Amino acid sequence: MAPDIKTLRSLRLRVENDTTGQTSKQMIKQLTIIGVGLIGGSLARALRQAGVVDEIVGAGRDAAHLQRAQELGVVDRYSTDLAAAVQGADMVLLAVPVGAMAAVMQAIAPQLSSDAVLTDAGSTKASVIAAAREVFGTLPEGFVPGHPIAGTENSGVEASFAELYHGRRVILTPTGVSSEAAVARVRDMWQTVGAEVTTMTADHHDRVLAATSHLPHLLAFSLVDTLAKMDDKQEIFAYAAGGFRDFTRIASSDPQMWRDICAHNEPALLSMLDRFEADMKRLREAIANDDGDYLLDVFAHAKAARDNFCGNE
Amino acid sequence: MAPDIKTLRSLRLRVENDTTGQTSKQMIKQLTIIGVGLIGGSLARALRQAGVVDEIVGAGRDAAHLQRAQELGVVDRYSTDLAAAVQGADMVLLAVPVGAMAAVMQAIAPQLSSDAVLTDAGSTKASVIAAAREVFGTLPEGFVPGHPIAGTENSGVEASFAELYHGRRVILTPTGVSSEAAVARVRDMWQTVGAEVTTMTADHHDRVLAATSHLPHLLAFSLVDTLAKMDDKQEIFAYAAGGFRDFTRIASSDPQMWRDICAHNEPALLSMLDRFEADMKRLREAIANDDGDYLLDVFAHAKAARDNFCGNE
Repeated sequence: MAPDIKTLRSLRLRVENDTTGQTSKQMIKQLTIIGVGLIGGSLARALRQAGVVDEIVGAGRDAAHLQRAQELGVVDRYSTDLAAAVQGADMVLLAVPVGAMAAVMQAIAPQLSSDAVLTDAGSTKASVIAAAREVFGTLPEGFVPGHPIAGTENSGVEASFAELYHGRRVILTPTGVSSEAAVARVRDMWQTVGAEVTTMTADHHDRVLAATSHLPHLLAFSLVDTLAKMDDKQEIFAYAAGGFRDFTRIASSDPQMWRDICAHNEPALLSMLDRFEADMKRLREAIANDDGDYLLDVFAHAKAARDNFCGNE
Repeated sequence: MAPDIKTLRSLRLRVENDTTGQTSKQMIKQLTIIGVGLIGGSLARALRQAGVVDEIVGAGRDAAHLQRAQELGVVDRYSTDLAAAVQGADMVLLAVPVGAMAAVMQAIAPQLSSDAVLTDAGSTKASVIAAAREVFGTLPEGFVPGHPIAGTENSGVEASFAELYHGRRVILTPTGVSSEAAVARVRDMWQTVGAEVTTMTADHHDRVLAATSHLPHLLAFSLVDTLAKMDDKQEIFAYAAGGFRDFTRIASSDPQMWRDICAHNEPALLSMLDRFEADMKRLREAIANDDGDYLLDVFAHAKAARDNFCGNE
């Protein structure tokens, strides 16, 4: 298969690093991934393919699942003892639901090297930083919170693939004490696998994601739940067409993961929800008052915005 | 191209009709389509392909558009004079936005044969029946309201294709006075092009469609409008991932058509909206009160319902 533009870009990045003599700094000696699913597994596959990691250690609760990851060549070895798994690691990725971050940090804290870079792939960022502050007392310099905006409907290590991050965005939300060197290492890691890395504050991240991801998931879950509670639900779903399937696809997402996200991004999500509800209330009034001009304005504004930002996709 | 199951089914239907000697009754001598876009154009192509229509006449306001339909072979001839276009027609399809139905009926009434079957493809049904009652004084026996649940993001006669209705549902909502013969002719017409035809009352249709189509469109339009009004909308849309694109795809629909639908299905839509808002309010309370169990219940219920009814699509 011919290398695509993303592969070429990551090759170029590494070549540039070669010329500045910093190759050894870019290399990861031991990457420990807590939670070897779609997100963690895909990063492991991509870093291995890029040849920038010496050893990948998987960790989690489910030995059978980790065994499968090893058989697939995603990890070199694994442990269900999280503390043991981070021993010797110079890079640690937490790829568990945000509701599990505090417990995982608590478990690895005793064995985490003070030189190690610690990052995560959680969907909310302020809550992960709060968990780290709680567990570590003060935030570690090597801690660089992150969020790859990537995923598929499928989950689990079997669904992981090296190309998942090609052209996807990764948001890093360094804390006030994250060291520049640690931020650079995490940025390099994601760029190597083809991602476009940006940096913002955790609060800003949480607000942007509440708007584009968390609120839409909430609406989709809620709509399907509302319809599924109706007496004639069988008939209602029978007449659902393609538009409904697209609209509700995200309602097939993992319920526990989304319960966690709602709980961990409460202020930003409630704020977006209130803003949306106020706009919906005005739309309802326009329908009840036969104000077609207002409806047309809103619909045309929305269509123009979506066509502009999403194109025909 | 080998005939698919739908083509075979429609062939079988016609053969069955042959054996009962009713072939001539199934044939359409002159089909007049008011509004030759995706919906009307696709029906025309499919009926012609099935060889069950002698002549197809297009009608509408835009002569250039109708000329294009003729060049594409979708219609045999056309007129911008709606009354003239229905002269001699034994089947008339109104495929215009629901907001235009009353005016179109008014225009064709003087020349519509009392033997003609009149049907439509409007997205709301009670309002179309109300328009017919208003225009014709009493509902014609030949009037059979209908709604093909089909469409694509694209519109216009250029986007039309003969296979649009394969495996799609068409809902007929006969009035109290629709004759059995007229209902049978409209049902046959849609079955011939591969659709699955069901019958229900207009009010029931409007309630089902409010749930699965009208409310989702309203939510998608409103969400995109809300985000597009935010100060950092550029950045917000920049981080929108695949889930957001799917969720908001229907917000790229035609604003005027959807303004009309909202206006013409007001009671059912407001009732669904109130039901949805009440459920959203409970979800909001659960988030604010850290009631993770309630969230998990709703999300799991929604996921199970969607996976059950939509599968992995």
